Order: sequence, then structure tokens, then C-alpha cells
Amino acid sequence: MNIAAAMDRAVEASYAAMGVSSPNPPVGAVILAADGTLAGVGATQPPGGPHAEVMALRAAGDAARGGTAIVTLEPCNHTGRTGPCSQALIEAGIAEVHYAVSDPNPVAAGGADALRAAGIRVTGGVGTDVVENGPLRPWLTRQRLGRPMVTAKMAAGVDGRIAAPDGTSQWITGPAARDHAHGQRSRLDAIVIGTGTALADNPTLTARTSDGGLYPHQPSRVVLGRRDLPADANLRDDTGGPLVRVESHEPADVLAALPDALWVLVEGGPHILGAFFDADLVDEVHAYVAPMVLGAGRSSVEIPGVTTLSDARRFETSGVATLGDDVLITLTRRLSTSGQG
Amino acid sequence: MNIAAAMDRAVEASYAAMGVSSPNPPVGAVILAADGTLAGVGATQPPGGPHAEVMALRAAGDAARGGTAIVTLEPCNHTGRTGPCSQALIEAGIAEVHYAVSDPNPVAAGGADALRAAGIRVTGGVGTDVVENGPLRPWLTRQRLGRPMVTAKMAAGVDGRIAAPDGTSQWITGPAARDHAHGQRSRLDAIVIGTGTALADNPTLTARTSDGGLYPHQPSRVVLGRRDLPADANLRDDTGGPLVRVESHEPADVLAALPDALWVLVEGGPHILGAFFDADLVDEVHAYVAPMVLGAGRSSVEIPGVTTLSDARRFETSGVATLGDDVLITLTRRLSTSGQG
Repeated sequence: MNIAAAMDRAVEASYAAMGVSSPNPPVGAVILAADGTLAGVGATQPPGGPHAEVMALRAAGDAARGGTAIVTLEPCNHTGRTGPCSQALIEAGIAEVHYAVSDPNPVAAGGADALRAAGIRVTGGVGTDVVENGPLRPWLTRQRLGRPMVTAKMAAGVDGRIAAPDGTSQWITGPAARDHAHGQRSRLDAIVIGTGTALADNPTLTARTSDGGLYPHQPSRVVLGRRDLPADANLRDDTGGPLVRVESHEPADVLAALPDALWVLVEGGPHILGAFFDADLVDEVHAYVAPMVLGAGRSSVEIPGVTTLSDARRFETSGVATLGDDVLITLTRRLSTSGQG
Repeated sequence: MNIAAAMDRAVEASYAAMGVSSPNPPVGAVILAADGTLAGVGATQPPGGPHAEVMALRAAGDAARGGTAIVTLEPCNHTGRTGPCSQALIEAGIAEVHYAVSDPNPVAAGGADALRAAGIRVTGGVGTDVVENGPLRPWLTRQRLGRPMVTAKMAAGVDGRIAAPDGTSQWITGPAARDHAHGQRSRLDAIVIGTGTALADNPTLTARTSDGGLYPHQPSRVVLGRRDLPADANLRDDTGGPLVRVESHEPADVLAALPDALWVLVEGGPHILGAFFDADLVDEVHAYVAPMVLGAGRSSVEIPGVTTLSDARRFETSGVATLGDDVLITLTRRLSTSGQG
């Protein structure tokens, strides 16, 4: 297996750690034996558990000696709840390390230097773009901005309506779009909705597979506002993630209430989405567009202050995917207005 | 050149006849010489001018003898303003004819039989799907339903807003989307807007190339409503198609006022689009989606009667294209609710 293919495999492994590893970065690691064959794959375990490199080394066993480690993030060099990964790689007799993203955290950084000091050949910058804009983007956002990455989700017809005038909204998008949205939930730290949506739709906000089973990881369910939820609200069931109440509708307050979260999805309603856009706190938009025209009813986003077109929030189109009969358009923050450099 | 490649070439040629040939079908034809080399390409000329087969035969000259004709529509068999194409093919000594779509018009049909009677090998059904859902769809719609094909166009942010509260809407979509929309105009018979849009935006509704030049074909500019347009309105300039005033906002009245039109684009505003959706007279939707969130302002479609989600107009997603930073989602009428069989 070559280094690029091994990095693809490490990236794939790291996706499974998203949400699970928070607040630590979801990292993936691959160990190739000295003869280049795949010897081990690992991903970051929940806080307190082993990091990706250690998991991959365990899987590889003796085959790691003289081999190559491929990691999505520069191996850490500090002793937190676990020992430093750089030390584990040295002790296992790894000869060569390739990583995608340098660790921006001054406490953990220095892993590459430590490895080199031990005589290991170290190469950074392998697959950086894929990792930075993929599994590590939420964690890098938290490192750089001190807050989680925020994705705004909307599911609407081509006219942007998310519900008919009587409030009916099930189902605008089809099964493939719903499966995709649940897959996203399984990687998130938190989903944010307002009390209005909670009371009107009585959602569960669990992450379910297409056959109705629960994903291993369930995001926190964050409900904004002061109104009580009924005792039998679906959000109170114990199969999902923790129910978090935040009395404020201020986006900054909401994010401050989620200090360990790396990735937060704001689902609505329109005024809550609008508040996040208004506060310039949306890094990404997932717009699921269904092949229908409602012609009346609520639009996906309401921003009170907008009066003219230059007030519109502009993004870049970073992805277009067909999901059954629906289309998912992914927008990302334009670099020109980005705080992420 | 094989038959499939020749049909692709004929389809391409026929696109140039869209709008130009109306009310006749925009047909493309290719003549292959007896040795299979490309000898001639032709497309339907404006009414009164030669049909596609005759244009292709003229281009081929003597090379047509013993050759093969590939045509997007069954060659006609009646003497209208021009002689029957079947006769022209027989006289040119064509040995073999392939066509995509059978002529549903009882007056013109019978071409295949006439060709066979003259000893020519005739094969129908070549590339039928591409032609039926492509260049001949508007004409087939008119043949089957007695009205033009109607496309509803909207250009909006992901929240479906087409203008900010103060009415500003230039530019929501970018240059690539605008070029695409102008290319569509160059194939249309008519563009429909309301007086409100005409007065607010003062559009030209001409079909322009990306360098600002005019396409050879310009669609009629249809303005609904009773209010006068100013003497210096851009719609009155003489570089565009004819200005047609229709006093009614009833979609059926509008289409009845365009008896020769094969393809009509309804551009808005929201209430005019809504009326066409409400009347179930939309065959296709072109939704240009820009990577922005307006958060306020007019939505693309307003349908007064909609109260619950089952009132929504459902379509099928037939195409998704990236146009610069914008996305074009094309919806087509669902077969289950289709009058087109």
C-alpha cells in the first residue's frame, strides 16, 4: 500500500472518531509493515482512551518494527490523560512517519521534532487539504477560533419553504436525504433547535441508521428558550444524546454552553438559523433541496436586519450531491469573510 | 461515422433550430455517404424554408446517392409550404434512413411507410429518449397537449429568496448562470413576466452571448397585466423579440395568446409563477441556486391556495449542474401527474 492510499485509509478511520473523540481531535492512523503491507488501522478513542497511533500500533503488534506510520494529525508530544504518541511510535520501532496536518496546539505540538530526534524520517503535508477540510475541520475551527464549527442545516423545496402554512413539513426530503442527515448526526457533538420547533415537531434528534437502529454515537440535543418541554417529549427519551437546555437565543451564549463541542449543527427554526447567520457564526450550510414547490409557508431562514442585497450572507459552493430525488448543496464560508484565515 | 454518433450530431444541429423553426419542429438531419463518411448536416429553417433533411441533402450533394440519412424526427410525408421530405430523400437516392421519434401528427405522418414503399431500409427508435426529452420535447408537448411546454425559472439563494426587502436582486446568480439562462432564451419562443417585474427591474429580456452580442434568435417578450410600460422601457427596444401584451394573468389565456409557441419560459414574479403552478401548467423548473442566504425578502413562488404539505407541487429531479459558484437544479413533471403519458 502506498502512502497516499494509506492516508485515505487513515482519513476514513478518523471519520468514525468524529463526535466520539471530542474535545480531542478525531485522528486516524495506519501502520504499514517494513514490506509495505497494511499492518494496523486505528482511530482516536473517547477521552481518556488511547489515541489513534496507539490503537494502530496495537493492531500492528510486532509488524510495526521498521514500518511506517501514516497519521492525519502530527503525533502529539505531551503527556495528558495518555502518554505522548511520539514516544509510542519511537518505542514500537517505527522508521518513518507521514502526517497530514501540523498540530496548532502549542501544548501538544513538537511531536515531529521529537520523532526526528529519535532518528525517524518524518514528512508532513501529506493529504493536508482533504483532512483540513474534512474530519479535522471542526477541531481546527475550535483551535483557531475558540468555538465549535457551526453548520446550518435546512431542508426545503426549491422555493426555500420548509413547511406549509399549517406547519406540515413531513416529508419534504426523501429517505436518502434523511439517511445522509442521520449519518451527519452520528459525527456531530450537538444539534441545536428552538423550543418552537421542539414543541411543534416533537423530534427525537437521535442519529439512526437506515434500518432504524441507533448509531453508536449520539449528539447532544440542545433546545434554546425558556418554555418547558412536556414530560413525554421525544427529546427526553434516553436513547439519544444528553438533553441540554440553553435559556438564551444568543448564538455566542449557545456555543459557550458547549465548551467541549467541536461540531454543532443548527437545525432551526428560521429565526434561530437567522440569528446564527446574523452573528456571522455559520461556517457551513447543508441545504437539502427537494424537487417540489410549496408556494407558501415558512422560509428556511429569517434574518431581521436584512434590507438590501448587500446584506445577504455569501458563501462558496463546496459540494453538490444527489441524494435520491433530492439535492444536497454544501456551502462554506468564503475566505474573504473568514476568520479562519 | 456510426449511426449513434451521427444521431448525436443531428441532435446537436437540431438545438440550433429551437425557437427558429416554430411552430414547426426543430429537427436535425445528417447524411452519411455510401462509405460512411459525413456528407451533410442540416436543421429546420424558419417557417416556409427547407426542412432539416433537405438542408442536409443540399450539403451532401451527389454524395447522398446510396447513402444513409439520420434524422431526429420521422421524415414528413405531406406537402405543406415545402414538399414532403420523404420524397426528397427518395429522389436523392438515399438507401437507408434512421430516425429517433415517430411523427405523432396524422397529417405529416406516413413518411416511414412512403420511404419503405420506395425500397429504402427504415429504422425508427434510434436515440428516442434523448430527442424526446431534449430538442423535440416542446414540440411534442404542443402535439400532445395543444399548448407549449412551460418552464418556470427562478434564481434565488438557498433560502429561496429572489430579492431583498428593498427589491434589490442584482446579482444573486453569477456570470455562468446568466450565460446559461441567455443560452436558454436563444431557444425559447417566449418569456413571460408580469408588469410588476417589468416596472421594477426594467429588464431587456433579450438573449445575449457572454460578450454582450445578440443571439440570432430572440424570444417574444410577453408582459402580463394592464399597467402601461414607459415609452423608454428597455422592453421596447428593437433588438429583442416582439413585445406582446396580455391583459389577463390567467395562465391558460397567456398560452392561448401564443398559438405558435412551442416553449415558453415563465420568469416571474412570484405570483405569476404561482398561478402557473396552481394551474398545473408547469412542465419543467429551472432553479438557479446561488451560494447565499438572504434571510428576508420575496420568495420565488407564491401560490395562494396552498395550506398543507400535500398541496405542494412535486416534480422529479432530472438534472443538477454546477454553473460557476451557482447550482442549476432542473425539475420535470412527475409521470404520475403528467398529461404527457
